[in-house]
Amino acid sequence: MEASGAGADRQPPKAILTQQEQEIAFNRVVAFTDGVFAIAITLLVLALEIPDEGSEVGTELVHQGDDFFAYLLSFAVLGRLWMTHHRFFASLARFDGPMMSLNLVYLAGIALVPFTSEVLGDYGNESAAVAVYGANLAVVSATFYVQVVYAFRKHLVREKFQPYARRYSGPANAIITVIFFLSIPVALLNPAAAIAFWVLTFAFGRRLIDWVTGVKSIQQPSD
Amino acid sequence: MEASGAGADRQPPKAILTQQEQEIAFNRVVAFTDGVFAIAITLLVLALEIPDEGSEVGTELVHQGDDFFAYLLSFAVLGRLWMTHHRFFASLARFDGPMMSLNLVYLAGIALVPFTSEVLGDYGNESAAVAVYGANLAVVSATFYVQVVYAFRKHLVREKFQPYARRYSGPANAIITVIFFLSIPVALLNPAAAIAFWVLTFAFGRRLIDWVTGVKSIQQPSD
Amino acid sequence: MEASGAGADRQPPKAILTQQEQEIAFNRVVAFTDGVFAIAITLLVLALEIPDEGSEVGTELVHQGDDFFAYLLSFAVLGRLWMTHHRFFASLARFDGPMMSLNLVYLAGIALVPFTSEVLGDYGNESAAVAVYGANLAVVSATFYVQVVYAFRKHLVREKFQPYARRYSGPANAIITVIFFLSIPVALLNPAAAIAFWVLTFAFGRRLIDWVTGVKSIQQPSD
Amino acid sequence: MEASGAGADRQPPKAILTQQEQEIAFNRVVAFTDGVFAIAITLLVLALEIPDEGSEVGTELVHQGDDFFAYLLSFAVLGRLWMTHHRFFASLARFDGPMMSLNLVYLAGIALVPFTSEVLGDYGNESAAVAVYGANLAVVSATFYVQVVYAFRKHLVREKFQPYARRYSGPANAIITVIFFLSIPVALLNPAAAIAFWVLTFAFGRRLIDWVTGVKSIQQPSD
Repeated sequence: MEASGAGADRQPPKAILTQQEQEIAFNRVVAFTDGVFAIAITLLVLALEIPDEGSEVGTELVHQGDDFFAYLLSFAVLGRLWMTHHRFFASLARFDGPMMSLNLVYLAGIALVPFTSEVLGDYGNESAAVAVYGANLAVVSATFYVQVVYAFRKHLVREKFQPYARRYSGPANAIITVIFFLSIPVALLNPAAAIAFWVLTFAFGRRLIDWVTGVKSIQQPSD
Repeated sequence: MEASGAGADRQPPKAILTQQEQEIAFNRVVAFTDGVFAIAITLLVLALEIPDEGSEVGTELVHQGDDFFAYLLSFAVLGRLWMTHHRFFASLARFDGPMMSLNLVYLAGIALVPFTSEVLGDYGNESAAVAVYGANLAVVSATFYVQVVYAFRKHLVREKFQPYARRYSGPANAIITVIFFLSIPVALLNPAAAIAFWVLTFAFGRRLIDWVTGVKSIQQPSD
Repeated sequence: MEASGAGADRQPPKAILTQQEQEIAFNRVVAFTDGVFAIAITLLVLALEIPDEGSEVGTELVHQGDDFFAYLLSFAVLGRLWMTHHRFFASLARFDGPMMSLNLVYLAGIALVPFTSEVLGDYGNESAAVAVYGANLAVVSATFYVQVVYAFRKHLVREKFQPYARRYSGPANAIITVIFFLSIPVALLNPAAAIAFWVLTFAFGRRLIDWVTGVKSIQQPSD
Repeated sequence: MEASGAGADRQPPKAILTQQEQEIAFNRVVAFTDGVFAIAITLLVLALEIPDEGSEVGTELVHQGDDFFAYLLSFAVLGRLWMTHHRFFASLARFDGPMMSLNLVYLAGIALVPFTSEVLGDYGNESAAVAVYGANLAVVSATFYVQVVYAFRKHLVREKFQPYARRYSGPANAIITVIFFLSIPVALLNPAAAIAFWVLTFAFGRRLIDWVTGVKSIQQPSD
């Protein structure tokens, strides 16, 4: 199978992984990804501040309303992103190196959320803080979109999900990413408007794309 | 393979997940949940304070008695909640979207415990701190109850566990949640009484409901 | 299938878990335990202090020698305990409720190590700090010993490992726990001696018990 | 069942683990390793500092450019190391005790990265900080190399990967480790040069060794 000649001659036989070995390798990537999500979502709590000694506990906690809001918002955001990621990975047949690297870039954005969320909780009415959070969501959304497009192009997606290509890797699915990028300048003008923008996107984004592409999202047991 | 007609025409064939794919998806949800529990329970330790330099280490540690109590109490609480959740999930046949969302709301309460526990450890004799901890337990208990009721209603529970509906999704099981909600005003009157209240609920809650409903809890290997 | 009579009549049929369901339940306990170990061991790094601004980075890091020592010691301790736990769990056939509770108490001790380790790193030449670390190890060791004895008594251990009962659940195996408890008063007299004590126990403890009981430890792939 | 004779008489029959038991034990080690990687990579975010109250959020975040650079660099480093480790472990047939201990030493280096990365982010233009980060990478690289050499020597690697011994456990593969060790004195002379050194090694290291040994890296699904 190997050509003769100086260099090729020294080459050991190609070690292809068996089906089972590939599944194990794939499962490790999935477990690693879930691990990062679970840790990031649990670290959100570190943004909440313990009242200083000698202060009124009740009053201090009430004044931390913004921190609690940021906690709940980011929990919902990470939870929702995880569910989406979960569905996407369940549709994959296999993995390759670039896909793994893309997933790591995506995770770098996910792992950043506890930081940008704390900034949002502490400075929610300053435009810079809101813009940073929006930028984080935009980057996460963009790298996820690239993952999906790549997976469909390289036929990493199971055969039966291939007909959904237009729904998931078409330009319509980029709308979400565009909305998050637009929320950055919006935040600089009016922080509250940007936050409302995100909430609407989370609530109606999927239905919007279903409607634009005319293709319903994949039915999964978790729908 | 595609039906004719304007809208349906653009719709790809329905991609139903196979039994095996559903199991993998379910296992990921379980692993994620366990991950959040394991991280939250391990983050409890961050509430313990390292003595300041130049101080008497021994004396300072002894004065942190309340923090150690809160650590042990919350470890027991999270451990017990995990065991209960573990048993409940072992009885599920499958999952759906609303169930997954309910589980995320539940986890938002679980991930909050390291914070409310630290507040309890630092301000255990202030009613506001105890009330906040009680409110956390009440919310967690309520969202768990809603999950259980939903699972029985939607027949997500395995056939053989269905006869237990009265025991788990009946009104009697709401007693625990009600007790935790009642502990909030109790805490405002007398913090120590509220803590005693929780401990009693953890120790006898299950047996109380066994007795009220006349149905014993599900026998599982971990009982 | 149902007995007649007032109370028994209301009782649903006993829902015994199948072999496969029991394995899944067991695997979740194992995964949870491994999660707590992995998190605790990784949180050890939080004990290392970032040099203050305006200081000599190199000098400050060198002065943190004790912190690095505590990091490495605790990494070795937790790593070793995990390996031992790993071997013990691999020999179990099944689990029950008290075993799960014992395991949670054990994990409460494991999750405490990042705290006692930080105290040790910061105050390694104060007897109170060393005694606290010793007490932590003693409690962990004792709860592990109780788990092992319980598992052998209740025949939770696989048939083929039962002949090892004398080696693992006999009084000889309590030596380790006794040594750690003795290291507490030793630490109060001479901190350095207590630390040397632990290192010797870790290095030779197993062989000592092999010799006392006349039974070699279980041969496992990781030996 | 017991052989006669003084010592042998007390010895229980050898309890060899079955194939399936060995796989479970191996999977736990893999899961533990992945857990430490996932936690360490997610803890990197703790190095980013929340702006102080009353400050200009936008300005402060921009001034943290070095911290963000260190976050991204370390995320890439840990991500890359994990992928390499992932590939290596996928080629193993089994495990033994020394291998497990070597892996723990390796993980002690991995779990240290959030600390050295924070030092790098805060003091990136001080040679000591850069040297410490380089030393961390060098130690990690060296312990990984020792693991690989040991696995090939002890035939822990699957049969079909054995022909790759020269590529992976030969002296050529030590080049990476040597480069990282050399980056320590380089950092002391010129911090920026050391950082450039690492980036080049990450970008071209594998190809360099492919070329030196004349053997291509193992083709895996994730390549």
